[in-house]
Amino acid sequence: MKKYQQVAASIQHQIALGAWLPGDKLPSLREQAALTGTSLITVTHAYQQLERQGVIQVRPQSGYYVSPTLAPPVSDGPGPQAGSDSPADIQGISQAVFDVLQSSCRPGMVAFGSAFPDPGLFPHRQLNQVLTRVSSSATAYSVADYLPPGSLPLRRAIARRYAQQGIAVDAAEIVITAGALEALNLSLSAVTAPGDYVIVETPCFYGALQAIQRLRLKPVTIPSTAGEGIDMAALETALSRWPVKACWLMTTHQNPTGYSLSPEKKQHLVALLARHQVVLIEDDVYGELYDGVAKPLPAKTWDNAGQVLHCASFSKCLVAGFRIGWVAAGKYARSIQQMQFMSTLSASSPMQLAVAEYLATQRYDAHLKRLRHTLHQRKQYARALLAATLPEAVTIHCHPGGYFLWLELPPGIDSQRLSERALADNISIAPGHLFTFQGLC
Amino acid sequence: MKKYQQVAASIQHQIALGAWLPGDKLPSLREQAALTGTSLITVTHAYQQLERQGVIQVRPQSGYYVSPTLAPPVSDGPGPQAGSDSPADIQGISQAVFDVLQSSCRPGMVAFGSAFPDPGLFPHRQLNQVLTRVSSSATAYSVADYLPPGSLPLRRAIARRYAQQGIAVDAAEIVITAGALEALNLSLSAVTAPGDYVIVETPCFYGALQAIQRLRLKPVTIPSTAGEGIDMAALETALSRWPVKACWLMTTHQNPTGYSLSPEKKQHLVALLARHQVVLIEDDVYGELYDGVAKPLPAKTWDNAGQVLHCASFSKCLVAGFRIGWVAAGKYARSIQQMQFMSTLSASSPMQLAVAEYLATQRYDAHLKRLRHTLHQRKQYARALLAATLPEAVTIHCHPGGYFLWLELPPGIDSQRLSERALADNISIAPGHLFTFQGLC
Repeated sequence: MKKYQQVAASIQHQIALGAWLPGDKLPSLREQAALTGTSLITVTHAYQQLERQGVIQVRPQSGYYVSPTLAPPVSDGPGPQAGSDSPADIQGISQAVFDVLQSSCRPGMVAFGSAFPDPGLFPHRQLNQVLTRVSSSATAYSVADYLPPGSLPLRRAIARRYAQQGIAVDAAEIVITAGALEALNLSLSAVTAPGDYVIVETPCFYGALQAIQRLRLKPVTIPSTAGEGIDMAALETALSRWPVKACWLMTTHQNPTGYSLSPEKKQHLVALLARHQVVLIEDDVYGELYDGVAKPLPAKTWDNAGQVLHCASFSKCLVAGFRIGWVAAGKYARSIQQMQFMSTLSASSPMQLAVAEYLATQRYDAHLKRLRHTLHQRKQYARALLAATLPEAVTIHCHPGGYFLWLELPPGIDSQRLSERALADNISIAPGHLFTFQGLC
Repeated sequence: MKKYQQVAASIQHQIALGAWLPGDKLPSLREQAALTGTSLITVTHAYQQLERQGVIQVRPQSGYYVSPTLAPPVSDGPGPQAGSDSPADIQGISQAVFDVLQSSCRPGMVAFGSAFPDPGLFPHRQLNQVLTRVSSSATAYSVADYLPPGSLPLRRAIARRYAQQGIAVDAAEIVITAGALEALNLSLSAVTAPGDYVIVETPCFYGALQAIQRLRLKPVTIPSTAGEGIDMAALETALSRWPVKACWLMTTHQNPTGYSLSPEKKQHLVALLARHQVVLIEDDVYGELYDGVAKPLPAKTWDNAGQVLHCASFSKCLVAGFRIGWVAAGKYARSIQQMQFMSTLSASSPMQLAVAEYLATQRYDAHLKRLRHTLHQRKQYARALLAATLPEAVTIHCHPGGYFLWLELPPGIDSQRLSERALADNISIAPGHLFTFQGLC
């Protein structure tokens, strides 16, 4: 698909989502170019294509408009019509992701398509020790002691790890959750209402797309490339153009491209969002899996206004099955506690206790060091195998840290069909469309 | 507050919630009497009061209308304007419940206000055994094996317990959740969209009220008394009057009154809802805590259409801190799995495994028998103490099973103020307003 076709498809999709209603004026060519990070020529071609298709109309001396005769937005996602969505639609759009993940988990599957870490890398013996120890105390069976915000020793241990990086996070602003996914979802719920605009990059973690749809928010997608990360100029334009409430980004070892923002970019990002009074929901689940000597600083480091909600977990670096994550929620800590209290009550007590006990009595950093080494080796091995096997026309994006490899296929290869073919041979891959709104339809 | 004043307050609150907009025609006197289960005289008085207050207007030969000049609904809950609610409002309304629960959990508190069972009643030694056992297996640390719908051995064990009661529930329709609260919330999400009408009884479990507000649904409240339970005639009228999508009821040992519907009423309820194609979300977390020889049958027993979502958990009868519950979701099982997958991913693996192991290797029914005996004794003791101590004007409602006592105070006693007074002496009670929409404001 050519660049201008991609831009056209993206605009058409925004219209389908209800972000632009029939009769609405679209951004000018110049604005759209800035928004999408493309050239004026590309946008002109895109608008011309949409005009030929009858999707938009040009009004001389005025600009481009969504065709007034266009059918109302399909009810497949957030938008002004979101209130009338049937829940079946929302479920339908997550079907693809759900299917890929479920098939990734089938026994015997070579699961390149799953972001779950290999459970063989978790420190079983130590986890078994701490779990046995905590389950001998009566408090493990009570729920009352671990209601939101969750175990104080665990929150203190997490706050200490921030402090080790020189980041000031008080235990009082941390809420323990069922993994980072609950933290992210609660964060988005706490800072938005249906119909609000939320920025995500594209491609991005499918969980962000699902949350936006489930909460009936309006997505503003900012292009992001495997080589350069999010387009900061396009982000800035979007912030000026739309009344955005929140921005959900994975700033380090991004899923799916593996890209990490530099400290400078993170600092710039926080300042930019603060200027527009936009909350940053920072998904930082892969932060511990860095290459090199020091853990990358999250964007939260530069947050002076309590406007960055830093979400992380132990699922990628210690144990996934426990479902223990957290959010350092700044001034939203109390709202998030109440949201959690209403929806799942709390994370399970023995799991909270076990992680606190692990952090207090085991050598977490020594484990992390081994884990990083193993993951690095495996990634390099996979990359070398892929480089030796795949045609040259495939670009392999491999960034330091994390465990993602992002392959860019040559034109004419449909990653969805490739995924289906691979699945038939018990190999799962995650086709790119899972990480875009287009793919969720 | 006199009966007609209660009815007036309830209508005014429905208007505030946006269930009736300025200019809307209200139910006729006769309809309203049926809806609220009160007399024509009471409703006439209520309407007259609202008319005097300028809230409603009478139009001769036509009926009663919400005053067109009335300010738009306050944004404190679901309603047509729900989309413009700020999340702060939704959090504000749960503040009261959150505060009571948090204070109930303070050390040294005599916690009559909390529905959490005494953790001293859980079988610690056996739970410790099973937790130690399952944590020695690698699978406890993986998340992939326990994604929605959750552990198959656990779902099979739960299905067998249904079968023992003669209820046909397939393991395939069961989804394991983080306690019943997640099951209930997922169920309501799966069968409604914002703006839909949902029936609850009043008073009812505050979790239902919070869920309705959080999901921006419109509540239709049916009166329920501690002596008679839900008013079936009013329910029937409401079903004819409103395009209701779902009905959330606690059918056995209701929180807060302790009332259980008879098998006949449950059967009638299921048939009635089926006729109106309304989904029943059946909250049955206290079912195991019966008095007598046999476990009460849930309404799910009479469900032929897969339209009853039966939600329960191990939190009240085995262990609360594990956060393991489930929903037998009929034809909605897959939708609920996807909802869970998007919001919390799954219940924690060791907790799922531990409960499955407990059910397979320990004597659950023997534990339940002891538990029921102890709870019965404690409730009778508390009742006797209360009867000996409280003024005669207080009515103590004590139904068989469960562990609730519902006290009806004489006119002039404000339960909210009583609650505050008691709290100062480290005694928590749950004032009645927590269980009504009025109380949530």
